[in-house]
Amino acid sequence: MLSARLVASGARVSTALCGTSRLALGLLHSSAARPAPKVAVVLSGCGVYDGTEIHEASAVLVHLSRGGAQVQIFAPNITQMHVVDHCKGQPLGESRNVLSESARIARGNISDLAQLNASHHDAVIFPGGFGAAKNLSTFAVDGKDFKVIGDVERVLKDFHKAGKPIGLCCISPVLAAKVLPGVEVTVGHEEEEGGKWPYAETAHAIKTLGAKHCVKDVTISFIMAFQAHVDQKNKVVTSPAFMCDTSLHLIFDGIGAMVRDVLRLSGK
Amino acid sequence: MLSARLVASGARVSTALCGTSRLALGLLHSSAARPAPKVAVVLSGCGVYDGTEIHEASAVLVHLSRGGAQVQIFAPNITQMHVVDHCKGQPLGESRNVLSESARIARGNISDLAQLNASHHDAVIFPGGFGAAKNLSTFAVDGKDFKVIGDVERVLKDFHKAGKPIGLCCISPVLAAKVLPGVEVTVGHEEEEGGKWPYAETAHAIKTLGAKHCVKDVTISFIMAFQAHVDQKNKVVTSPAFMCDTSLHLIFDGIGAMVRDVLRLSGK
Repeated sequence: MLSARLVASGARVSTALCGTSRLALGLLHSSAARPAPKVAVVLSGCGVYDGTEIHEASAVLVHLSRGGAQVQIFAPNITQMHVVDHCKGQPLGESRNVLSESARIARGNISDLAQLNASHHDAVIFPGGFGAAKNLSTFAVDGKDFKVIGDVERVLKDFHKAGKPIGLCCISPVLAAKVLPGVEVTVGHEEEEGGKWPYAETAHAIKTLGAKHCVKDVTISFIMAFQAHVDQKNKVVTSPAFMCDTSLHLIFDGIGAMVRDVLRLSGK
Repeated sequence: MLSARLVASGARVSTALCGTSRLALGLLHSSAARPAPKVAVVLSGCGVYDGTEIHEASAVLVHLSRGGAQVQIFAPNITQMHVVDHCKGQPLGESRNVLSESARIARGNISDLAQLNASHHDAVIFPGGFGAAKNLSTFAVDGKDFKVIGDVERVLKDFHKAGKPIGLCCISPVLAAKVLPGVEVTVGHEEEEGGKWPYAETAHAIKTLGAKHCVKDVTISFIMAFQAHVDQKNKVVTSPAFMCDTSLHLIFDGIGAMVRDVLRLSGK
């Protein structure tokens, strides 16, 4: 019986194990009268080099769970730009679907990005990873002349227009820089500093787009205070995350600051 | 330039972005005289239904990073039992390699499990996910009559013989129950309790193997104290994790307790 259940990985398993990012101990984190903030999370595959950065997505979901948020995960139902062998760092000659691969992070509990409606949520968060630059946009190929896919542009504009907060980390802030004129974001530092900020050039591309880049660290060194950059006017919250070559627990905490500020700005 | 770098996902990227689970702010967590514990983490793919449970692996790596550990990640260089579409919960007609898929979690910084030598590490940790029951063993297919793959059996026996701690969570404790006679482990509760413990039957399989199953929660409710089960004699530390249908942040904290006890038992 157990064996059959373990092998099946079917409907019952999905029902039993999914929904892990849903509200559970809300009573420990918010008063009974306070509704749980409804947060949409947008993924772009599964794996740093061709999809969502796995640890960034997991950190977002852990912090949202602790914050008592009700989470719904989305990804576009499109083919990945390419599939990278993460051992070799080289593209493979195969094809994968962004929604199906993102479902690995979502434990099957995921919806097509086409169905994401800003009126049903209080905030939206985009974790990073090359998927944001390869599948959600063409930034990896076209640099400052890149395009953002239609559903991502629509979602960003709709949340912004509704005055609902938008959280982005790692490379994802380029999406907001492209779609929301004059927005303030951070992708960390603007110089490589000996390899500590290997993608520092991204900050210059962001400035070329007419957005304002604000230099920010993953964390304020040695005092263990974690910060995200908050554009109060546009309600856009950004954190450098893996744009910095630093320790995983600091990236986890930096993303925690981003999630905290997104939830605060949601007013829920 | 930036575009080329983002697309390439090659050697430079791997070098710059990898090694995130390595020791960095050790000074904040341990005295200068105290060597960093060297911990091996064994993965079984990437995705709960056919590989490593992504959030469990990420939680293990975040807690090891915070604990100042020096981490090396391993996975067997074998073909997955099958590939599951995580949207549909159904097997796909394609083939993937466990080492290559695990590299998505490891950000490329991974080694063949065949190279894992217990003498080079102070502890070993096996996150869960169906990969432990499908790729590291045949538990998903054969139940109590299952086999463990050679390299996993060797690694478990070698760390045990050397008196070095072994951490396992979710379904992975079955591996220790099979290989280490009389070991004490937990996979949570022994009854389903209305779907809260959907894999409770696993506890009975563990007892059939001659191991001792100890009932344990992911967390001690309402006092926010997190526990793992520690078999002091065998230095085996286990946590139910996603065997329980609960909130992601509680699973994260429960895994934190497991990592804390593994590091403590390592004596480093």
